[in-house]
Amino acid sequence: MSVYLDKRFSALKAYTPGEQPQGQSYIKLNTNESPFPSSDKVLLAAREEAEKLNLYSDPECRRLRSAAAELFGVETDNVLAFNGSDEVLNFAFMAFCGRAAFPATSYGFYPVFAQLYGIDALEVPLQDDLSINYRDFCALDRAVVIANPNAPTGLALTPWEIEQIVCTNRANVVVIDEAYVAFGAQSVIPLIEKYDNLLVTRTFSKSHSLAGARLGFGIGSAELMQDLDRIRCSTNPYNVNRMTQAAGIAAIEDNDYYISCCRTVAATRDATAQALIAEGFELTRSMANFLFIRSDKISGRELYEGLKKRGVLVRWFDKPGISDRVRVSVGTDEQMNVFLGSVREVINEKK
Amino acid sequence: MSVYLDKRFSALKAYTPGEQPQGQSYIKLNTNESPFPSSDKVLLAAREEAEKLNLYSDPECRRLRSAAAELFGVETDNVLAFNGSDEVLNFAFMAFCGRAAFPATSYGFYPVFAQLYGIDALEVPLQDDLSINYRDFCALDRAVVIANPNAPTGLALTPWEIEQIVCTNRANVVVIDEAYVAFGAQSVIPLIEKYDNLLVTRTFSKSHSLAGARLGFGIGSAELMQDLDRIRCSTNPYNVNRMTQAAGIAAIEDNDYYISCCRTVAATRDATAQALIAEGFELTRSMANFLFIRSDKISGRELYEGLKKRGVLVRWFDKPGISDRVRVSVGTDEQMNVFLGSVREVINEKK
Repeated sequence: MSVYLDKRFSALKAYTPGEQPQGQSYIKLNTNESPFPSSDKVLLAAREEAEKLNLYSDPECRRLRSAAAELFGVETDNVLAFNGSDEVLNFAFMAFCGRAAFPATSYGFYPVFAQLYGIDALEVPLQDDLSINYRDFCALDRAVVIANPNAPTGLALTPWEIEQIVCTNRANVVVIDEAYVAFGAQSVIPLIEKYDNLLVTRTFSKSHSLAGARLGFGIGSAELMQDLDRIRCSTNPYNVNRMTQAAGIAAIEDNDYYISCCRTVAATRDATAQALIAEGFELTRSMANFLFIRSDKISGRELYEGLKKRGVLVRWFDKPGISDRVRVSVGTDEQMNVFLGSVREVINEKK
Repeated sequence: MSVYLDKRFSALKAYTPGEQPQGQSYIKLNTNESPFPSSDKVLLAAREEAEKLNLYSDPECRRLRSAAAELFGVETDNVLAFNGSDEVLNFAFMAFCGRAAFPATSYGFYPVFAQLYGIDALEVPLQDDLSINYRDFCALDRAVVIANPNAPTGLALTPWEIEQIVCTNRANVVVIDEAYVAFGAQSVIPLIEKYDNLLVTRTFSKSHSLAGARLGFGIGSAELMQDLDRIRCSTNPYNVNRMTQAAGIAAIEDNDYYISCCRTVAATRDATAQALIAEGFELTRSMANFLFIRSDKISGRELYEGLKKRGVLVRWFDKPGISDRVRVSVGTDEQMNVFLGSVREVINEKK
């Protein structure tokens, strides 16, 4: 740390992204990417747009937002586009969270945002089965941030449960981070018409195979969007580049392909879960594109390290309450077969 | 504004980007873009990378930073990559500017960042000839932010003058925004070795024809970079998408092409300046890729509006001291000939 950094940030601990090995060849099951490539239409759109890179992108993302609005079943002024959903989450913490509450085990970025902005943050423990008790978040008198399904557990709340949180916290914004909603859980976007304190965030990183393009959305009342837009335009109005805007529009036009990719991922997830249970693993009932697994036979760290040695990257969190587990992104059937084989090897070696 | 927005932001006035008309065909001389397309190598690199969009980009931008370090003549740990230079400026205001000073007439985003973070900002007036007096920024006991060349004047300080500012403000960071340095002014990057309070920002929007890709850099001491990186990784670690990282690397490999583009722009700028002087215009001696022009025959607003009616977009700032002028980005020779013809028409119509 230099002597110049504002003292507010002297204890700030940045978010640690999952390993992104460059060049080395791993089966990458550690950052919840889609194992499926972009559709041809998306590739074509991004490539065509490259010809206009000398010109600024549309700072209002008009065509993209209009397409996204149709996809989400809302009006264009209910949607904003961002450089990944991390960006909209960042702005939401900045704009709406004087005081905040989120699950103590969830997306590891929430406490970082809270620390960054000096937010009084209440971290609510999960229940023993790692699920969120929606009642813990009702009538809290602070902003609420919940990932649904939650990460790294994959467990989801129902729309009715989320509605209870939203309607008992009308004086504060409730952020529902739906990064993983496309793999089986139910979206609460329809509730934005009823509740102007509901902000839903989405990403195309997982469901639409665009992690490397960086594209996220915020969905909420027109007034909430105007607030977020004020922050966006006060930090980086040209936040979404040309190629990504074009890729996003094309991905929405090809939505059927992505729905089918998500269904395949969900089926592979459930088959992998069955196989792991047969091996004696205990799993949360994940509705996301990852599994959160533990075994009495091996620690989380040993499993992570044993798999890495065999060329399979999964994610292990060195965190009380979940350090006995690893999170495994769902890849293709072929990748999951290699993963399962490696799991068996690691456990046998341990015996 | 919703009832949920933090009261800190209730008076926040966002930055207004230049008009970015979508679909309609203008000669766009209003946002200082390069009139030249990306090189073939850049197009190829961005297009190839599209195939891997399902995988996250490298959050550390290792290959890109290593290439940029070579270009800038520094070490890799002296460079960070950003989603446009607006992003690094944003982080610099957040991280280093408890109190700040910048020219009262400069990039319109500086006062927005200052307001966003509640920074005590001293706006130092330009001299009568619109130049910056470097002495006004010496020994100020606050962070200093200066665009060099300055916008919208195009006037540049010498490295010696900037060094006086940097060495008399050793307790604070001095940010030199070199967005327009490639068109004739001199960079102060060599000074970072000597002064750990110097942060230089760069963008590939103008010099490297990548406005639509969003790519900026911060260059400074390793410690300053670590601070900036802490902020970056606490807001959006995957800030630069895959296609842009690839385009940036290829643009650096093709640097000769971009140097030649910048030289052409500078030559066209000087020829256009001569033609405007012959028409009775008064101009600052711009070292950037734009001209800042006024005429006794017509107001800035009238000139802007008359040109727009004729399909030529320039930028007019409704701001005391400069509202009699318009800023004209330098396009191709052909575009500038159309511009000059339109200028003559607008002035004749006015007579």
